[in-house]
Amino acid sequence: MTTQEILRSARTACPALRCASQEQKDAALLAMADSLWAERDRILAANAQDLEAARGHISDVMLDRLALNEDRIAGMAEGVRQVAELPDPVGRVLRTVERPNGLVIRKVSVPMGVVAIIYESRPNVTSDAAALALKSGNVCVLRGGKEAFRSANAITEAIRAGLEQAGLPRELVNLIQDTSRQSARELMTANGLVDLLIPRGGAGLIRACVDNATVPCVETGTGICHVYVDARADLDMALDIIDNAKTSRPSVCNAEEVCLVHSAIAEAFLPLLKRRLADSRAAAGLTPVELRLDSRAAAIVDGTPAGEADFDTEFLDYILAVGVVDSLEGAAAHIAAHSTGHSDAIVTADPAAAAYFAAMVDSAAVYWNASTRFTDGGEFGLGCEIGISTQRLHPRGPMGLEELCSYKYIITGNGQIR
Amino acid sequence: MTTQEILRSARTACPALRCASQEQKDAALLAMADSLWAERDRILAANAQDLEAARGHISDVMLDRLALNEDRIAGMAEGVRQVAELPDPVGRVLRTVERPNGLVIRKVSVPMGVVAIIYESRPNVTSDAAALALKSGNVCVLRGGKEAFRSANAITEAIRAGLEQAGLPRELVNLIQDTSRQSARELMTANGLVDLLIPRGGAGLIRACVDNATVPCVETGTGICHVYVDARADLDMALDIIDNAKTSRPSVCNAEEVCLVHSAIAEAFLPLLKRRLADSRAAAGLTPVELRLDSRAAAIVDGTPAGEADFDTEFLDYILAVGVVDSLEGAAAHIAAHSTGHSDAIVTADPAAAAYFAAMVDSAAVYWNASTRFTDGGEFGLGCEIGISTQRLHPRGPMGLEELCSYKYIITGNGQIR
Repeated sequence: MTTQEILRSARTACPALRCASQEQKDAALLAMADSLWAERDRILAANAQDLEAARGHISDVMLDRLALNEDRIAGMAEGVRQVAELPDPVGRVLRTVERPNGLVIRKVSVPMGVVAIIYESRPNVTSDAAALALKSGNVCVLRGGKEAFRSANAITEAIRAGLEQAGLPRELVNLIQDTSRQSARELMTANGLVDLLIPRGGAGLIRACVDNATVPCVETGTGICHVYVDARADLDMALDIIDNAKTSRPSVCNAEEVCLVHSAIAEAFLPLLKRRLADSRAAAGLTPVELRLDSRAAAIVDGTPAGEADFDTEFLDYILAVGVVDSLEGAAAHIAAHSTGHSDAIVTADPAAAAYFAAMVDSAAVYWNASTRFTDGGEFGLGCEIGISTQRLHPRGPMGLEELCSYKYIITGNGQIR
Repeated sequence: MTTQEILRSARTACPALRCASQEQKDAALLAMADSLWAERDRILAANAQDLEAARGHISDVMLDRLALNEDRIAGMAEGVRQVAELPDPVGRVLRTVERPNGLVIRKVSVPMGVVAIIYESRPNVTSDAAALALKSGNVCVLRGGKEAFRSANAITEAIRAGLEQAGLPRELVNLIQDTSRQSARELMTANGLVDLLIPRGGAGLIRACVDNATVPCVETGTGICHVYVDARADLDMALDIIDNAKTSRPSVCNAEEVCLVHSAIAEAFLPLLKRRLADSRAAAGLTPVELRLDSRAAAIVDGTPAGEADFDTEFLDYILAVGVVDSLEGAAAHIAAHSTGHSDAIVTADPAAAAYFAAMVDSAAVYWNASTRFTDGGEFGLGCEIGISTQRLHPRGPMGLEELCSYKYIITGNGQIR
C-alpha cells in the first residue's frame, strides 16, 4: 500500500480504537506480546537479512542497535506486557464545571487519533511505539529506517496477527512500506490524517521534522544537560552525580554534557573531578572522560582547551565541557543561553540557591542534588515513554500514556442557548 | 527596531516576568488599563488615521471592526482589569510524586516564554492578548494587520507606559513594526526565540501559519459546526438551539454551519425549521437564513439545492446546509468526515444516543441539548481566552490562562544517581 493509502486506512480505523474498553486493549496487548514470541523465528530471519544488507554500510554501534536475538525479542514482548499493566489513560474526567446557566462541562481525556512516529534503526521501537499507541487509544503509523525495514515489517506483522486474534482490526498498527525520504515528507505534511508526529532519533531527524512538518509535531530529545556545582555543594555528592550523569550511559539525551563550577570551590573541586572522571577511570581500564576546559578551569587542571562550540554540543560521548562561573546567577544565565531545555541540575546544600535555580532554569526537568539521568518515563513513574519533549507547547518532558492523549469537552444541557 | 531585534529583546525580558508575583502582575494590569484610558485621545487619533487610510480599500464590516471610540476603549480597559481578577495560572503544583528512591518530582505550571500572536484588524486584540500574556507570565510579540497598525501601535505604547509605571520592563509587550508578509514569516520560523505561535483571524491566515511555521503553532478557529436533530429530539428545543447557533452571531467560529436531521422526524421538523429560520425572520424584517438542502431535505421543503461543497464550507453568514440522515451512526459518520473538530451538538431526549454521540464525535466541544455558541473561554468559566484550538495536540478548545502555560518538573533529591 502507498503511504497515502495507509494513512487513510489508519484514519478510518480510529473509531474502533476510540471506543475499545481497557479490557479489550489489554487483551490485545497480551496477544501482541504472545505473537511476537511465537513469530520469533520469522523476525530473526528478517533481522538476519537486514544485518547482512547493512554490514559494511553502517557502524558497529549501529549494527548492534539493529541486531535482534531471542533475548531481545523476549524483552520486547515483556515491554508490551508491561504496558498492559498500566492504567488506561483514556476516558479520565480531568475536570467538571457546572455553570450558572446549568450547563455541565466535563473535560475528558481522549486519544489523539492517528500518531505518526518516524524513527531510525532500533527494532524495539516498533513494538514499544505500537504498544503505547494502542493503550492510549491511538492508531499508529510507524516509519522506521531503511536498514531495519525487514525487521520492523516482521515485528509489525506479528503485532497485527496478535490484534486479529484479539478481535481488533489490523489497521490499528501500520508500518509505512516506503523508506525513502518521500514517505517521511508525506507524513510530515499529512494534515487532516496525522494528529501528532513524533520524531525519535538523532538531531538531524528531529530538525527535519520540526522544519518541515505542517502537522502538529513534538520536538524531542536533544539534550545539552548541565550540572552546576554551587559554592555550597557537598563535593562528594557532586562527584557522584557528575560521574553518573556523564558516564553511566553517555549516548542518551539525559546524559550530562556541561559542568559549571562556582569559582569559590573550583580550586578544590576541579582536581577531584579530573581524578574521578579521567585518571581513576583510566587506571581502572575504563574510557577516561575528556575534559574540555574554559580558560579559568584550564588554569586549575590539565585538559583540552574548550572551543566556543563545546558549550553548545551534544557530545553523546565521554567528553565533558567544564566552565567556571562567579555566581549562581551566572550559572543560570549560562544555562539560559546554552541549554536545550531538557534537564539541568544544581548541586548545593543551600535551599535558597536551589529555589532560585528551579525558578530561573526553564528546562523540562530541573534537578536539585540528583542526576540528570532520571529524566525518563519509567524513572518518573509514568511506566513508559515514547520520548522526551523539549518544547514548551504540551506535552513537555517524558511522554508517557497520558501525554499521548488529548482531551475534549463534553457539555450537557437542557436546551441552553446563548 | 527590526523583527529580529524585537524577538531577541523579548527573549531577554522573559526572566523578569517568570519571577513576577501575582501582585506585581495584577498591579501592572491595572496600570495598563488606566494608561489605555488616559491615552485615549492619542489612540483615537491614531485610529482615525488608520480609518482614513483604509476607507475605500476594505469592506464596511472590516471598517467597523477597525473603528474605535471612547466606549470601545473603555471596554478594552475593562477587559484588562477583568484579567487582573483571575487567579494566577503560574506556579501551580499540578502533581507531586515521591519515588521509591526518595526523589520528589513536582510538576509545576510555568509560562511558555515568548508567545507570538499574528492577528488582523481588530484593535482590541492588542490589549486582550497583552493582558492574557502578562497574566500567564509570557512575553508577547504581537503582529497585527497593516490596516490597524497605527491603532495597535498607540495601544501598545499606552500599555508599555502602564508597565513602566508598575515597575516592569516595557519589553514584556512588543508590537512588530513591519507589517509586510516578511515579518509574519520571521515569526513563524523564529525557532529558539518564539515558544508558541497563535494565529488569530481568518482561514487564510491560519493556513499560512500551520503550513509555514517551524515554531510550535496552535491551529485555531475554523469551525464547521454541526447540530444533529435526533429521532428522539424535542423539536421545540431543537429549533431554539439551531436558531441561536445559526443566527445569534453568524460571523463567529462557534456558529452552526450544518444541520443534520434524522429521517424519522425530517417531515415534521424541516417545515418548522424553514418557518423559524427563513419565513418568520423575513416577516420580522430580519435577514432570513438561506437553507441549502440536500436532495432528501429538498423533497420536504423549498430552498437552495446544496452543492457538495456546502457541507464543507464555513459560511460565517446567514446560510445553513441541511441534510437528512438515516441514523445516529450516519450522523456521526457525516460529522467525522466533514467537521473541523471545533463544536458539534446533538439534540435528543435519549441518553444512550447522547453518550454514543459524545464518544464518537471527536471535536473539541461536543454538546448534548445546548447551542454550539457556548464554546468560548468566558462561557466555559475560564474567564477569558485568546482563541479556540482545533488541534488535538494540547491545548485544545478555548485557550484561557492555564492553556497559555506550560509546565516543568522540579526534582528534589539528596544525591540520587541512577
